[in-house]
Amino acid sequence: MDKNENKIALLLVDIQQGLDELEFYGGNRNNPNAEVNCRKLLDFFREHKLPFFFVQHCSTNPASPLFPNKKGHQIKEIVAPATDEVVIQKNVNSAFIGTHLQNKLEQAGITNLIIVGLTTEHCISSTVRMSANLGFSTTVVSDATAAFDKIGPDGVKYEAEIIHMTTLASLQHEFAIVTDTGSLIKELALKHP
Amino acid sequence: MDKNENKIALLLVDIQQGLDELEFYGGNRNNPNAEVNCRKLLDFFREHKLPFFFVQHCSTNPASPLFPNKKGHQIKEIVAPATDEVVIQKNVNSAFIGTHLQNKLEQAGITNLIIVGLTTEHCISSTVRMSANLGFSTTVVSDATAAFDKIGPDGVKYEAEIIHMTTLASLQHEFAIVTDTGSLIKELALKHP
Repeated sequence: MDKNENKIALLLVDIQQGLDELEFYGGNRNNPNAEVNCRKLLDFFREHKLPFFFVQHCSTNPASPLFPNKKGHQIKEIVAPATDEVVIQKNVNSAFIGTHLQNKLEQAGITNLIIVGLTTEHCISSTVRMSANLGFSTTVVSDATAAFDKIGPDGVKYEAEIIHMTTLASLQHEFAIVTDTGSLIKELALKHP
Repeated sequence: MDKNENKIALLLVDIQQGLDELEFYGGNRNNPNAEVNCRKLLDFFREHKLPFFFVQHCSTNPASPLFPNKKGHQIKEIVAPATDEVVIQKNVNSAFIGTHLQNKLEQAGITNLIIVGLTTEHCISSTVRMSANLGFSTTVVSDATAAFDKIGPDGVKYEAEIIHMTTLASLQHEFAIVTDTGSLIKELALKHP
C-alpha cells in the first residue's frame, strides 16, 4: 500500500433509539431512510474490512431520551455494533470534544472521514465542522443523515427538509464534500473492489 | 464581586474588509447593519471596561481576500482594535482551533461568551458550537452577524436570509441563546449601569 494513500474511515453518529421520540426533538423529521443508508455504508465497510467507529451520545440531561440506562440510549438495531466494534461515547454535540476520537483516528493513520447519522443540524454539523477544522478530509452523506423541524428566533417554523438542505449547503465546499449513499458506494467500490 | 457571578466577554469574529468581496463569498449577503451592531456592543464593552477579544481570520488560501498581507485581511475600520486590545489570529473556521482562545478565556475566568461577526453559517456557527460544547454559556446576536447565499447539494440556491435564519434556528436552545443587539444592551445595562 502506498504510504501516501488516503486512509478512510466511517463515523456513525448518534443512531440511537431515543431519536425516534419525535416530540422531544421538534415534532417532525425528514429522510426516513437515513438509517437504511447508514446500514448500507456500514455493510460496505464491514465487508471490505475498512475502519469504522460508532459514536453514542450520553446525555447529561435526565429528561433526554439519550440519557444513559434509558432504552433510547441504545444504538438502533439496524446498525447495532458487534461486541468487538469500537463505540465512542460523548456527551456534547461534537464527537471530538471530551473523547479520544481525534487520537484514535490519528493513531490509525486516518486522513479521510465519512460522517453519517443524526441529526444533520446538531451533532452531524458540529462533528463535520470540527473534523474539517482539525484537518481531516471530510465527507457527509446527504441521505444518511436527517434533521428535525426547528423554530427560529423570529418564531417562524422551519421544516426539517429546509433545515437539512441549508445545513448541507453551509457545510458543502467550506467543510465537506456532500454526496449520497449510492454515489459514495460506487466510488468506494472502485478503490476497494 | 460575588465569586460565583457569571463573567461575560464579547468575541468579535472575522469582521474584516475582505468580506466585502461579495462575489468571492456567494454573491449576496443579508443584514447590512451587522457591523454597526457589532460596534454598538463593542462601545458598550469598552465603556464598561468589560473584556472583549477580536478574532482575525488568516486564510491559508492565497486566493482568499482574507489571506494575510492583503488589504482584505484587515479588521474593518468600524470595529478596528486599539493597539492594546487583544486580537486572536486563526486559520480555520472555529476560533477555538489552533489558537489560545480557550486558555485565555479560562484564565480570565470567563463563563459567558457573546459571539458576533461574520459569517453566521461558517465561522459564527462553528465558533458558537465549540463555545457551547466546551462549556461556555453562549449567546449569539442575530442582528450582529450576517450570512451569504449558498448553493445546496441539490443545486438549489438558498438566499442569505434563509441561511441566516435556519442557522440561528439550529443554534438556538441547543448551543446558544439567540438575542438582538438592542435587547442585549438593555440586559447588560441592568447589570453594568
